[in-house]
Amino acid sequence: MTALTLLPGTPDPDRLARAWLSVRSEPGDPKVNGLVCEVGAEAAVVRLAAGRVPGGTVAPVRPDPDPRATATAVLDDAARRGLRWACPGDDDWPTALDDLGYAGEVSGRGGAPHGLWVRGALPLAPMTASSVAVVGARASTEYGNEVAGDIAADLAEAGVTVISGAAYGIDAAAHRGALAVRGPTVAVLACGADVTYPRGHDTLLARIADQGLVVSEAPPGDHPTKVRFLARNRLIAALASAVLVVEAAWRSGALNTLNWAGSLHRPALAVPGPVTSALSAGVHHAIRERRADLVTSGADVREALTPLGSPVVEGASGWGRGERRPDDGLDRVARALLEALPATGAIRAAAAAAAAGTTEPEALRVLGALLATGLVERTGDGWRFAGRRGGLPGGAGPRTLPR
Amino acid sequence: MTALTLLPGTPDPDRLARAWLSVRSEPGDPKVNGLVCEVGAEAAVVRLAAGRVPGGTVAPVRPDPDPRATATAVLDDAARRGLRWACPGDDDWPTALDDLGYAGEVSGRGGAPHGLWVRGALPLAPMTASSVAVVGARASTEYGNEVAGDIAADLAEAGVTVISGAAYGIDAAAHRGALAVRGPTVAVLACGADVTYPRGHDTLLARIADQGLVVSEAPPGDHPTKVRFLARNRLIAALASAVLVVEAAWRSGALNTLNWAGSLHRPALAVPGPVTSALSAGVHHAIRERRADLVTSGADVREALTPLGSPVVEGASGWGRGERRPDDGLDRVARALLEALPATGAIRAAAAAAAAGTTEPEALRVLGALLATGLVERTGDGWRFAGRRGGLPGGAGPRTLPR
Repeated sequence: MTALTLLPGTPDPDRLARAWLSVRSEPGDPKVNGLVCEVGAEAAVVRLAAGRVPGGTVAPVRPDPDPRATATAVLDDAARRGLRWACPGDDDWPTALDDLGYAGEVSGRGGAPHGLWVRGALPLAPMTASSVAVVGARASTEYGNEVAGDIAADLAEAGVTVISGAAYGIDAAAHRGALAVRGPTVAVLACGADVTYPRGHDTLLARIADQGLVVSEAPPGDHPTKVRFLARNRLIAALASAVLVVEAAWRSGALNTLNWAGSLHRPALAVPGPVTSALSAGVHHAIRERRADLVTSGADVREALTPLGSPVVEGASGWGRGERRPDDGLDRVARALLEALPATGAIRAAAAAAAAGTTEPEALRVLGALLATGLVERTGDGWRFAGRRGGLPGGAGPRTLPR
Repeated sequence: MTALTLLPGTPDPDRLARAWLSVRSEPGDPKVNGLVCEVGAEAAVVRLAAGRVPGGTVAPVRPDPDPRATATAVLDDAARRGLRWACPGDDDWPTALDDLGYAGEVSGRGGAPHGLWVRGALPLAPMTASSVAVVGARASTEYGNEVAGDIAADLAEAGVTVISGAAYGIDAAAHRGALAVRGPTVAVLACGADVTYPRGHDTLLARIADQGLVVSEAPPGDHPTKVRFLARNRLIAALASAVLVVEAAWRSGALNTLNWAGSLHRPALAVPGPVTSALSAGVHHAIRERRADLVTSGADVREALTPLGSPVVEGASGWGRGERRPDDGLDRVARALLEALPATGAIRAAAAAAAAGTTEPEALRVLGALLATGLVERTGDGWRFAGRRGGLPGGAGPRTLPR
């Protein structure tokens, strides 16, 4: 049986196969991920669906007589839940996640995700290209919340996306700091991207999905488990350009995320606190052991993103990383809106919507998000394009982050 | 003119010459100190007293027709003020201060002191052989005072001498932490060792002199100056086995002491605090720049004293450093008391005083101080010798500090 016989006539069989893997295997299952690395997603589905499951998988993979039907149903169900499926090969797939493949080989844990379920309209790669994971204790102190919120706001204002886990405490303070300045933020969940967890963060998650993205590799509708929290931490570290821990007790999950940053060669950063606070003990230990560098402010964090003083572009759109074009990875509506905006002068959102073939509310939502990426600017007269098509945004070339 | 013609018939002309240098030149004057290194103290006095002053000295050196009379008068005056003169060549001269000669050569600042004026009966070298300088902001916070006091108490209880500058704030908290557990502590002043500065620390300085030592290279009776504060900082760093900063604003003098520790290859340590506190900004900057290692407790500090895990002897008596004998550097009364004490059983202070040829109050004072060095123990029946004569103290050999 070949991949083509498994999913005949499918326009993108790899995509379908990855969706099947996402709902039929556990996030970060090293055996399943290793099999995908070895034989590819489709061939892996052929074997797993036929019951030929590698030994030592995290959870059983049930045989499936018709994986194509299963995968198609999963995608349909996800769409009804307001989720889209992003996976390797997509224009907006964050190549930073490829690093997990290598880290997985080394450590025997994790590996790259099959894909991510995404709630929110913004493109994934540009939103995470210049980003900092801000994580920490759930039972955080007022001090920790204040510092996490301030640093997140500073980063988001500079166009650096704030990634976190939407948990109580430091995670929520970080997301809120970014939301408060209408900056970019991404929540990575251990449950389905459509599931409200924790329950109290219903409104917060809705705001993040509106202004940024809520993503997860867990199946739509599923609930979090311990192994999924650990698998989620690796995604937060891999998606981010750097990981910052604000408060962490001696055995905090945030330190797990910090260690992933080290394995992935991301800057690992930590905010100190009073030595009399148990919630800073884990942070201080990490700094003492040189597993994290001490930072005190958003400026310190931004400096860590350019450790050699190389010029980087502000904004979440990722051109600091290479020869990406300004509109790489944007969805159809966003691209059409960018095409519709003038580089000098400005047009109203209604005119941009008409030119882009979308509604005015949709245009306003996408333009608001593009504002956070630095690709567009809002003037008194409406909206204008702030990048230079086909080159670096911002007109006069790369800007250095403020020191 | 030779040194012998300058100070004919003097039993210790180098000692007299150094006392003259101490009161006629400024502490840490690099030119004067360089001259002493080059030609020796006596020949330096010959030149300086004859008006042949090296260019670029910190302050003018006045010609002196009779330096011997001057020096003798200075020593007599110091004795009246309750001070003794300790200088290189003395049994209890801390050889750690020799490091300043080398650091002075490298940096062009400071250099080794000509000697130290000492208030207090305890021997200088054993008191500083295992020691930590605990310094920080004058306008410290309650948090800083609490942490400095706790760490100082931990160190002093482990027999590690707490060295500081007797200033308001962190310095005072550190001395008080040591005093509170009847542990060893040494104040290094920028004014005469007999001068109460700051005024409010009259009682504190008296307690330090009683239980430990108050020392200075500034002339007896003299007041502090800015250059003397800077010169004093180098002494604090050189006398100590490690330097710890607890709170320091961006341009704090405590950071000057920390930098001296770096130049002198002493461990440079720092306690973090809230990033929202301006009084921790200088500390965090030093940690970020790797000029100091983050510590959170007395245990962390003690670990830094033995970075390679080598066993060290608890106590302020310095046998960790080499083949020193237990009673090296002790004054006559202390040696006589140690000889008088039994190693098993115990005797009353009155009996020890009689055997040592001193008074009971004097014996109690010196025994109390020896208690802090770990050389003697107090039992229900009186006092006993806790070291092993001619070998390591503590009976069963070196003990490793608790981790």
